[in-house]
Amino acid sequence: MQYVKRVFSLFTIIALLSCAERMDQKSDPLPSWNESKAKQTILNFVEEVTSEKNPNYVMPENRIATFDNDGTLWSEQPYYFQLRFAFDRVRAMSAAHPEWKNDPLFAAVLNNDIKTVLSFGEHGLLEMVMATHAGMTTDEFATTVKSWIDTAKHPGTKKLYKEMVYQPMLELLNYLRANGFKTYIVSGGGIDFMRPWTEEVYGIPPEQVIGSSGKVMFEMRDGNPVLVKLPEINFIDDKSGKPVGIHQYIGKRPIAAFGNSDGDLQMLQWTAAGAGKNLMVYIHHTDAEREWAYDRDSHIGRLDKGLDEAREKGWLVVNMKRDWKRIYPWE
Amino acid sequence: MQYVKRVFSLFTIIALLSCAERMDQKSDPLPSWNESKAKQTILNFVEEVTSEKNPNYVMPENRIATFDNDGTLWSEQPYYFQLRFAFDRVRAMSAAHPEWKNDPLFAAVLNNDIKTVLSFGEHGLLEMVMATHAGMTTDEFATTVKSWIDTAKHPGTKKLYKEMVYQPMLELLNYLRANGFKTYIVSGGGIDFMRPWTEEVYGIPPEQVIGSSGKVMFEMRDGNPVLVKLPEINFIDDKSGKPVGIHQYIGKRPIAAFGNSDGDLQMLQWTAAGAGKNLMVYIHHTDAEREWAYDRDSHIGRLDKGLDEAREKGWLVVNMKRDWKRIYPWE
Repeated sequence: MQYVKRVFSLFTIIALLSCAERMDQKSDPLPSWNESKAKQTILNFVEEVTSEKNPNYVMPENRIATFDNDGTLWSEQPYYFQLRFAFDRVRAMSAAHPEWKNDPLFAAVLNNDIKTVLSFGEHGLLEMVMATHAGMTTDEFATTVKSWIDTAKHPGTKKLYKEMVYQPMLELLNYLRANGFKTYIVSGGGIDFMRPWTEEVYGIPPEQVIGSSGKVMFEMRDGNPVLVKLPEINFIDDKSGKPVGIHQYIGKRPIAAFGNSDGDLQMLQWTAAGAGKNLMVYIHHTDAEREWAYDRDSHIGRLDKGLDEAREKGWLVVNMKRDWKRIYPWE
Repeated sequence: MQYVKRVFSLFTIIALLSCAERMDQKSDPLPSWNESKAKQTILNFVEEVTSEKNPNYVMPENRIATFDNDGTLWSEQPYYFQLRFAFDRVRAMSAAHPEWKNDPLFAAVLNNDIKTVLSFGEHGLLEMVMATHAGMTTDEFATTVKSWIDTAKHPGTKKLYKEMVYQPMLELLNYLRANGFKTYIVSGGGIDFMRPWTEEVYGIPPEQVIGSSGKVMFEMRDGNPVLVKLPEINFIDDKSGKPVGIHQYIGKRPIAAFGNSDGDLQMLQWTAAGAGKNLMVYIHHTDAEREWAYDRDSHIGRLDKGLDEAREKGWLVVNMKRDWKRIYPWE
């Protein structure tokens, strides 16, 4: 009897141990994050707002998390991937636009002189984006984007652009959703450019994507209603436009917001000013080997004022080099 | 033995019958709808798009249903309820605006001369709405709306405006959601006016409400970020604005759309032009006793072109008098 008891308790201990081990493996929702303060801050926040007995508990319908896209969910160097899409559109459309050869901006694109192209600054680039995105119906545009995103590769990594997404952020998106969060993209990028692929790549459906947009017009073509994209700006979802976009599209204040540049600062400020517990996170590009390292002096994704404010207010700054085991899913 | 068998089968039959009866009661998701073609059309549509083996099956993520609000989910006579809110705001704000006494529109509001007020037409009314809605922060405005909707009563029925919602439509919203649909409001009414109460009244959360909007501006007040409502139109979600709003906010085409006026026609056309099975519904106000009867000649909620097109294309026209057992929940 004594023997039976001992064997039994030994089995029990082994079973419990192996169970605990399995639990532990199972219970790490962020395996690509190193065991650091960053990971722990995120885990603690989610634990607090989802535990009903915690004073900081948040009802599921108010668990809104907003994510910038360029530089926060996928890479943005050497220049925003949507610009590359626009350049490819210029090339594809150039036969129908002989006048572009005499336009310094469009000519530079056609000559692949990216340095000159970028020197036109935001205004020039926006003009080019408008010219290449407009005129089509929304359905035609979605088809064009879909076929581009499924084939276009980054010149540096030779990977599809849609593969240059951050594995730790994919895990974070899943983890938040598994805890009742609704995850949104709030990006300066084009809303019609993102929506055709964000569900496949990030698990974020079109209705949870907020971005910059051009005006569209309802029109009857041969008795069929279409929406035609116009070469006119409707909304710029950047800087102070981000809280505006959040208000207009969601009508609720996020309790967690993730960005990587000064363009995200107002979104983080707006989130921080909410009642109750909230989480403001900057992804800091510090890894020149595995990705890119840039902040205060970068033309793309500049993080300067935001970095100061994050440090002053104790927001979480994720150091990609130190905090992330892996950058991309294919590593 | 023979006796036992007989008793047993008698019990079985009784049990089966009572079970079937209970099933039948349980399985009527639209008890306030009369047994008519309208009800059957809706039930058949939902059955088709949710049965995996049906050729018209639609994946849950694409089950988007859009509803106009004024005249489709709640009453709109003798004039849009939001106008009454604006009139009440004019009265509440008039002490701070002595100049309004000399303005013919505002003076008419203060004198309760609604006929003169309405004679100013859409443009004048919009101006008044802008004047009374702007200047506040979005949080202040939401609080103002919430306290109005919880107390303001309709002069005719003496019921709260928020109680003047259609019971058959509440059942329909629930029925669609129970079948995996995402239900949206797509209204000419103000988005910031609707969002504070649509979840409580219709079960539709703020992020699924699309409406007209004024511009808002992000601003720092004593170090606190606020969004201030500006007296400037951002978007009119009416007529051809409805498919535009649907594209901008949802990015998917509805498979079911419900309206009651010519202002909803383009939304129904846009829905009808989608691939696959879809359902276009007009609510026709035919019940002068229990609600109001109006269509082609009404200034509010005119249904003229839409009625012709619905008949021509075989869209469902719900006859409120004939098809609805009850109009309001409190009947």
